[in-house]
Order: sequence, then C-alpha cells, then structure tokens
Amino acid sequence: MNTPPHPISPNATIALAIHGGAGNITPSNLPPNQEQAYRDALTQVLETGHALLCQGGHSLDVVEAAVRLLEDSPLFNAGKGACFTYEGRNELDASIMDGHTLQAGAVAGVTTIRNPISAARAVMERSPYVLLIGTGAESFAADQGLEIVEPEYFYTRRQYERWEKSHQAREESASLNGEKFGTVGAVALDSYGDLAAATSTGGMMNKRYGRVGDSPIIGAGTYANNATCAVSATGHGEHFLCNVVAYDIAALMEYKGLSVQDAAEEVVMHKLAQRRGEGGVIAIGKNGQVAMPFSSVGMYRGSITADGQMSVHMFK
Amino acid sequence: MNTPPHPISPNATIALAIHGGAGNITPSNLPPNQEQAYRDALTQVLETGHALLCQGGHSLDVVEAAVRLLEDSPLFNAGKGACFTYEGRNELDASIMDGHTLQAGAVAGVTTIRNPISAARAVMERSPYVLLIGTGAESFAADQGLEIVEPEYFYTRRQYERWEKSHQAREESASLNGEKFGTVGAVALDSYGDLAAATSTGGMMNKRYGRVGDSPIIGAGTYANNATCAVSATGHGEHFLCNVVAYDIAALMEYKGLSVQDAAEEVVMHKLAQRRGEGGVIAIGKNGQVAMPFSSVGMYRGSITADGQMSVHMFK
Repeated sequence: MNTPPHPISPNATIALAIHGGAGNITPSNLPPNQEQAYRDALTQVLETGHALLCQGGHSLDVVEAAVRLLEDSPLFNAGKGACFTYEGRNELDASIMDGHTLQAGAVAGVTTIRNPISAARAVMERSPYVLLIGTGAESFAADQGLEIVEPEYFYTRRQYERWEKSHQAREESASLNGEKFGTVGAVALDSYGDLAAATSTGGMMNKRYGRVGDSPIIGAGTYANNATCAVSATGHGEHFLCNVVAYDIAALMEYKGLSVQDAAEEVVMHKLAQRRGEGGVIAIGKNGQVAMPFSSVGMYRGSITADGQMSVHMFK
Repeated sequence: MNTPPHPISPNATIALAIHGGAGNITPSNLPPNQEQAYRDALTQVLETGHALLCQGGHSLDVVEAAVRLLEDSPLFNAGKGACFTYEGRNELDASIMDGHTLQAGAVAGVTTIRNPISAARAVMERSPYVLLIGTGAESFAADQGLEIVEPEYFYTRRQYERWEKSHQAREESASLNGEKFGTVGAVALDSYGDLAAATSTGGMMNKRYGRVGDSPIIGAGTYANNATCAVSATGHGEHFLCNVVAYDIAALMEYKGLSVQDAAEEVVMHKLAQRRGEGGVIAIGKNGQVAMPFSSVGMYRGSITADGQMSVHMFK
C-alpha cells in the first residue's frame, strides 16, 4: 500500500474481482439481514480496490488490500472469522502472486499473524523463499514487523458454534449450511497491464493433522501471469490441489488459445466437476475479461469490469 | 509394498527413472570412490524397482520403494542424510501421486518420520487430505503406525560439516560443491499402464522460517497422470514452485501434443532457464519414453527403459 498514485491512462483497462468462498449458499440458508451484510462487505471491498486502481494503484497492492479487508471481516473464513480445526484452533493459509514478475509468496498453518496475506507478500518481497509454514512463518512475520496477535484474535462466536456443533457430530469435514469452502480472494488488472492474484483462508472446518489445502499453493489456489490471467480459487482444496486448478486455466489459455471464460469454465465446470471437485474460481484475463464460474450451489463474489460496472452476487 | 505379484503381459511396456538431486556435480568435485558409491546406490535402487515392475508390481509401490531406499541412503539429501536448516535441524518434505486415480499425498516440515514418502502415501490413501504439515503430519504418521524416529536419526556427519561450514559463512542458501538441490525422486510406468511419481527431500541447506520448496507440492515437484506423464523434479525449489514445473510438462503434452522429451526440455531448458531456475526433472511419458533434462552442471540419475537398458549418470 506504499505505492504512490500515478496518473492513469484514460484508455487503460482496469478490472477487479473478489470472492468470499463457495458452498451451499441459498436464500433459505441466508437470512435477509445476513445477505445484506455480505452484500455490503463485498461492495465495500470492491469500491476500495477499484478506487485504488483508478488512482493508478498497482494490482499487487490492490489484491493485498482487498484480501486484508476480507480477512478483517468476521463474515468470511479467513483471518478474523476463520473456521476452527479439529483441535479447536484457527490455522490460516494465504498466497499472493505477481503476474509481472511471476514471483509469489505464501504462508501455511499460521496462528498468530493478523493478516496472512501480508505475510505472504513479505515472503515474496523480503525473503529468498516462496512458501513458509507454521511457527517458522510466524517468526518471519514477526521479524518483518507484521502485526502479531494472540490466537484468540481469530475467534468468532459464529465459527465456534459451527465447530462445536460439527465437532460433537464427529464429522471430519463439515457440510453445514452456508459457506462450505470458506476462502477469500482477489484478482486485479491494473492500468500498467499487470495482473495479480491473492487468496487467504482458515481452511476446512475440523481439519486435522496440520491439513493444508490449495489456498497457499501457487498453481492450485492462486496464479497470476501477465501473459494469460490471474486466478484465485475456492473449493474442496484437495481436488483443487490434485488438479492444479489455477495454473491449468492459464495453461489452457496459453497452449490452446482459450479465452479466460472458456478456460475457467472448462476447468471448474468440466474437468473438476467430473472428478467431483466442488467449488469455483475468480479469474481476470490479460485483456480485462472477468470469469467467475462455480459448481457449488453458491459463491460470494463480485467484480468491477473494465466498463466500470459493479456486480455483487452470492446465489446462482 | 503389499501388492501381490501378477503375471506380466509379455508385451507390456515398463519403465523406471530415478534421481538423487542436481547441482554442481563434476568429476573434480566427486572423488572416484564417492562416484562409485553413488553409482552403486543408484544401480541398486533401479534394479530393485525394475524387479518389482517385472513381477507385475504397481508403479505406486515401485516409486515408494525406490524413494524409501534413497531416503535410507546417507548419500542423498532426503531422509537419512538430509541437509540441515539454519537452526541445525532436519526438516523433510515428500509427495507422491497416482497417475491412475489422480490422487496424491504429501507431507512438509516433518522431523520424526523415518520415511516421509510413506507418510505421503498414507496421507493419500488413509486420510481425506492431500497435504499435511509439521507436527500434525507427524501425529498422523504415528497414528498410522509408520516408523517414528528421534530427530537425531537424520544426522550425518557429511551434512553436518557442510552446514557448519556454510552456517559460519552466514549464507542463507548454500552453494557448495556437490549436490546443490538435493532431492530424490522416482517415476515409473507399470505393466498395467499406470504411471506414478514420488519425490522426497531435506530441502535447501540453511533454509529458515519453515521454508518449503517444490518437492511436496503436487504440480510443482511431483505430478502423474496416465493421460500424459509422471514427473519428479529437483532444483531451486522457489523457481519450480512459481513455474508449476511438473504439471507444466503434462500440460504441454496434453494441450500442445508435445512428446515427453520435448515438453520436459521446453520447461527445464527454456522456460525455467530463462527465469534462472536451475535444476532438472525425470519424466516418463504414457508410452514409456524417458526424459531426464537438467540445466545444472550435473544430476544424479538413472533409468531402465522399455527395452530393458539400464543407464546411470551423474555428469553432463
């Protein structure tokens, strides 16, 4: 966020898309006041990110800022509001990628970093590494001066009650109403033609044994390359990992000439769906087209396209 | 290793390739007696794996068995013989993928599991997860009855002396003579037409902050798909992660129709090399062709091709 504003070219194409997780999100599962709360939160994040892009902000700053807001909101399963593990903890994962440099950073299994996405960015920019895990990642974040919190900071009554309910039922992976694959993410194209992608999550409720999903994995949950697209995924992480989802969309564009819409649809609605991999992605192509396919019942999502049109949706 | 032997079809194509890491491996860096020790170790692993394939063994069993042998050898940077972290510990990573089911398993940052590759396989076959990290992964392995050892088991004088030397020089990433990107891996095609890949490592010497490279990441260090190829990588992990190396080779075969040789060369010798990503891969295509390109000075490697020819090499 320390990028000085630049004058934007009047012809420059900018675009932004965000998600707040996919799952069994229906009008009957979401009371009207809650629906409005989600709509307001997504709208605020889009407006903030878009204003930055309009001021000549860099896509990397924009996706980090958008994901920080989503992490700070207790409505989403990332940062504050993360789901609970089998042991009743909050273990967070995040990753970020710069489509201009093809550099990336990620953290996994962290419990004390207030904004895991900023730790991921610090890994990318201030270490020779890409992926740091556990207490090592926390030490790095502390050394870098990032905000460290007590693990209790991530507690929300909503997630704790969901955990208690499912934990008592001894489910290893939850399938309650509402968001099932809670993850947040952002993708942006800035006025310099640079793409970036960022993803952050509390992971799968009741996860055990240090389970890590696709969110902190470059190529699976997050990918950005100015030559093709920027992608952030949300879904059943194990399937997204084995199907290398985010990079596969880029590969279909690069090697088969597909549009971002066709590539994202092919991966999410056909390849993944055939393998029972439920979830969705948000993607922006190098020319600014936005695609947001999902195979789950609903996905919290929103975008501001190149023509300035904003849309916020959660149901099919 | 509990697969009963099956009669092999006389026409079935089988193939096996292994690696023991890439780096500055030259005749002048490797005294003749050491060269012979590496040659013997690689030969023994190839013979063991090939015998299993000839008896109708499954590729998944073969790559696990081959990597276990490489992990147990103190010559290679995986399992016993792993390099030391900045703090003087041994933190191990491994992954395995089944090209028939497209299922995978992985562990990262483990310090007490004698054979991380077997833990990766247990994650794949006996958990709903793909990637487990740290103490959680260790608890899972213990619960599954895998062999747990004291962290001191992984100590070798050779690696400790390399660490002391480089640690005193305060290098964050080592660039000593000998293997630089120590990793071991195996890929196999069995008589049923099934491909599998496995990779295991002690990571980068002097790594800090819970650094994890490409070895336990499906799509980066390991990938297998009966439709295309099986790949295990060794190299500067951060570059391999950002370039999604293993899956990229499969994508070039699937989407552009390249042979496994051309796809592996394109990724390792062109795409990665342009981005200063040093290292190599071993790959077997669905028809049994073996490719082992590398951009580093040397790579410990060997294969037994479909015609039964064995080769073991370490230099260019």
